[in-house]
Amino acid sequence: MDVALRRSWSLKTAFPFMIFRRTLSLSSSWGVHTIRPPAPSGQRWAAARRRHIHSGAGEGTERCPSAAPERRPFCRLSREDLAFFRETLPGGTITDPDLLEAHNVDWLKSVRGHSELLLRPQTTAQVSAILRYCNGRNLAVTPQGGNTGLVGGSVPVYDEIILSTALLNNILTFDHVSGILTCQAGCVLESLSQYLEEKDFIMPLDLGAKGSCHIGGNVATNAGGLRLLRYGSLRGTVLGLEVVLADGLVLDCLSTLRKDNTGYDLKQLFIGSEGTLGVITAVSVLCPRKPSAVSVAFLGCQTFDQLLGTFKLCKGMLGEILSAFEFLDAACMGLLNTHLKLPNPITDCPFYIVIETSGSNSAHDEEKLHSFLEEAMTSSLVTDGTVATEDAKVKALWSMRERVTEALTHEGFTYKYDVSLPVERIYQLVTATRDHLRGRAKNVVGYGHVGDGNLHLNVTSSARDPALQAAIEPFVYEWTSGYQGSVSAEHGLGLKKRNYIYYSKPRPAVALMGSIKTLLDPKGILNPYKTLPDDLE
Amino acid sequence: MDVALRRSWSLKTAFPFMIFRRTLSLSSSWGVHTIRPPAPSGQRWAAARRRHIHSGAGEGTERCPSAAPERRPFCRLSREDLAFFRETLPGGTITDPDLLEAHNVDWLKSVRGHSELLLRPQTTAQVSAILRYCNGRNLAVTPQGGNTGLVGGSVPVYDEIILSTALLNNILTFDHVSGILTCQAGCVLESLSQYLEEKDFIMPLDLGAKGSCHIGGNVATNAGGLRLLRYGSLRGTVLGLEVVLADGLVLDCLSTLRKDNTGYDLKQLFIGSEGTLGVITAVSVLCPRKPSAVSVAFLGCQTFDQLLGTFKLCKGMLGEILSAFEFLDAACMGLLNTHLKLPNPITDCPFYIVIETSGSNSAHDEEKLHSFLEEAMTSSLVTDGTVATEDAKVKALWSMRERVTEALTHEGFTYKYDVSLPVERIYQLVTATRDHLRGRAKNVVGYGHVGDGNLHLNVTSSARDPALQAAIEPFVYEWTSGYQGSVSAEHGLGLKKRNYIYYSKPRPAVALMGSIKTLLDPKGILNPYKTLPDDLE
Repeated sequence: MDVALRRSWSLKTAFPFMIFRRTLSLSSSWGVHTIRPPAPSGQRWAAARRRHIHSGAGEGTERCPSAAPERRPFCRLSREDLAFFRETLPGGTITDPDLLEAHNVDWLKSVRGHSELLLRPQTTAQVSAILRYCNGRNLAVTPQGGNTGLVGGSVPVYDEIILSTALLNNILTFDHVSGILTCQAGCVLESLSQYLEEKDFIMPLDLGAKGSCHIGGNVATNAGGLRLLRYGSLRGTVLGLEVVLADGLVLDCLSTLRKDNTGYDLKQLFIGSEGTLGVITAVSVLCPRKPSAVSVAFLGCQTFDQLLGTFKLCKGMLGEILSAFEFLDAACMGLLNTHLKLPNPITDCPFYIVIETSGSNSAHDEEKLHSFLEEAMTSSLVTDGTVATEDAKVKALWSMRERVTEALTHEGFTYKYDVSLPVERIYQLVTATRDHLRGRAKNVVGYGHVGDGNLHLNVTSSARDPALQAAIEPFVYEWTSGYQGSVSAEHGLGLKKRNYIYYSKPRPAVALMGSIKTLLDPKGILNPYKTLPDDLE
Repeated sequence: MDVALRRSWSLKTAFPFMIFRRTLSLSSSWGVHTIRPPAPSGQRWAAARRRHIHSGAGEGTERCPSAAPERRPFCRLSREDLAFFRETLPGGTITDPDLLEAHNVDWLKSVRGHSELLLRPQTTAQVSAILRYCNGRNLAVTPQGGNTGLVGGSVPVYDEIILSTALLNNILTFDHVSGILTCQAGCVLESLSQYLEEKDFIMPLDLGAKGSCHIGGNVATNAGGLRLLRYGSLRGTVLGLEVVLADGLVLDCLSTLRKDNTGYDLKQLFIGSEGTLGVITAVSVLCPRKPSAVSVAFLGCQTFDQLLGTFKLCKGMLGEILSAFEFLDAACMGLLNTHLKLPNPITDCPFYIVIETSGSNSAHDEEKLHSFLEEAMTSSLVTDGTVATEDAKVKALWSMRERVTEALTHEGFTYKYDVSLPVERIYQLVTATRDHLRGRAKNVVGYGHVGDGNLHLNVTSSARDPALQAAIEPFVYEWTSGYQGSVSAEHGLGLKKRNYIYYSKPRPAVALMGSIKTLLDPKGILNPYKTLPDDLE
């Protein structure tokens, strides 16, 4: 602990601000998984052990729980349907296979659908007309925002019509006193952030995918991201939604009020339901003032216990200015070095922390941060560290955490897990997975949002490897469930994780979810095969 | 503006810390309103004009929308029923009319039911057994917490069985690292606060009724209160709920995770649904660290525009340490002086502000607060003010805001309105109501949570006065609706406001609420006649 804080550390390498979807070059070894017809799995799904899991679920079947289910008996697109859509959406009815390609495949290139029709409405009335028609004709629809999800929730599974929010991209109102923004669902998160920053406000959420993701998709998936620790979840900051239901009915809950206790809060049904209950067409959201001072510290720890000690100290000493507490392990740092040529800004350590503070008075904030860092270093919680306050350096330090996802894509194939656990458990799962796999994986890495108890566990191999997957699953889910964790903290369930829901939710709760789905979408046309498990439907 | 800030101002009067339910002496002129049989109203309900209001709603009827509806055909309590309850809840089955009295009447003594049975379960299993039985027998049930609500939501209307959470009062777990508390629904808010403060944490909500209200009731009514500006609503801070459904099924959503995106967030259905969808038996809630420094400023302004200017300045200069921005008008100050003998701590002004800061560093916080106050006074936004940092003085200044409700009870009869509006509109409603009533009321006063756009408008008269009520309603609701406000910001709808829901929610949304009620409680036994309008059922 004789390494002083290098506050004057200067970046030798360019750290471009990254919009990962745009800059990513995909390795050919990713092996896009065509899921029609359903991929037969050589692995028998190990029967789930948790008390909530019905003893019969998944047993006696050769089907992998993440495989696609059989196509449901929706109608197929006819010439008359196409004629209707062309009349309703002149210029917004796309059938060109080349243009459809990017909408049929997810960002990870891990699932592929076979839709032959992409619709790009510009108004809520058009969305309503589309859904009313589809519901009448029993045509299935997949709502799609920026298509940056990680669980296959935003692409069709078979021939569902893709309903893109891309042209629903107008900002409707912004109130400078209250900070309440109202916009259409297809506004890109980064565009909203830029719009607000000029007005001295910020969005209450920030994600690595901000350059592509849509606010409607963020809300539909209850996106978490990097600011949740400070500004809370979208369940608190989203004040209103406009939603089109499966039968075309427009539900106007687009309130711009901080408080409204008149009846049930229906908008909550649509937050996090992944487009299975309605299509979000507009959002109102409470935006915080832009902090006038932002600092980032990048620190190294020798053990995860020291990292947790640093977290506890930090919560006490930084209090109201703490806006993020993120971590990555040495394996992540290795991937950043190898694949992205990002050098480690401090000495090598088993664990790295990114701490962000944001506040209204830079002198006060820096004083708090420096007192904390001094205490963290003199008490040997932290081995080395560097601090940035300039915008470019702040972004550079942040990229050490934000670009881990990108670095992982260069590994070949990645099995991704997004769990939440009591915070003291999160790294135990990484260690347990490494021990369990005994070298079968190329890399087992852990990073994530310590402040939210949210771990991103990633297991890589040079190519898709069903035997490796069978070794990981259900091991990871059982371990998580054993500590009352969530098997999807922020990514949602989508197509890939729908059948794992019972690891985190009791059967009566899942049955009630099914009843709500039936109530709102009786024919099941909205984003079929997603979120809810196969055994419900 | 030549009056300096009197920072050394000392309180001459004792301001006892108030638990208003316990200390309140009720004027006999309050006139408890017995609502069986339904009170015939001499006033025809003026047909609502708003677009969302169905043209037929309320027209052609002589019934006042706040009057009780006809008793629904629930079964009446039999000897066999009583025998069942006595066996299920030995010692917790109360039929003594004297003991029932306080549970049949609301805190305001404005509505009265005629229940002959109070049940006090101690376990979730007992709640489940009670509801399973009642559902089978078609017996109606009113869940009751601390019975401090203001809209008649927590007392029976006819002979519904009262299901009290009072003995479900155990703290289950508390995690010192994450600040997550899990407790039974009947824990009193102030007891939880005291428990947490010893551990250096606080509850994320605070209310005047804290000495009596139960956390389960807070959640069931989505209580707002004094800390919402800083810590957000219960929709973000409540992490998990255990709920017993109408048929006795126990829904275990008692998660203690900050993030969990596995399926629909069912707990949101029960937050703010006033016990009409299920009975909350346990709660887990994310608690903030106790701030080490708290200051309160009590300021005077000459106009409401200056008050709004002060709010805007304050948000910028106090930023992350601002924890409350409340106001009261000169009429409220008059009531505090007259009825409670509380002297005005500053010179007389038309408007008063209570600003609270809370943070982790008292020197930093005081510096921020003093810079803000200097700016507010030199720019003539504020005319006079006083600041307190000592605990007793902080409480004394707070009581000028918190005890307005109590002062109003000495006026005779009070018509209470709790609306949210765009913040620049909130006082316009007070002025418009005064103009509209042209001296017919004893007092028209306004106070509330500026930071949340939440106005408490109260109109007093020496006794119940249907002609006055008819002059206020629907005027206040129409005015509020005209600016897209909410006719119940935080109090809920309960019995009294259920038929006004269409002023703030469109008809399709209310219809969907009705469908959800039917899905979860097909026989309608849970808290009948509350929250949803009569025309739905």
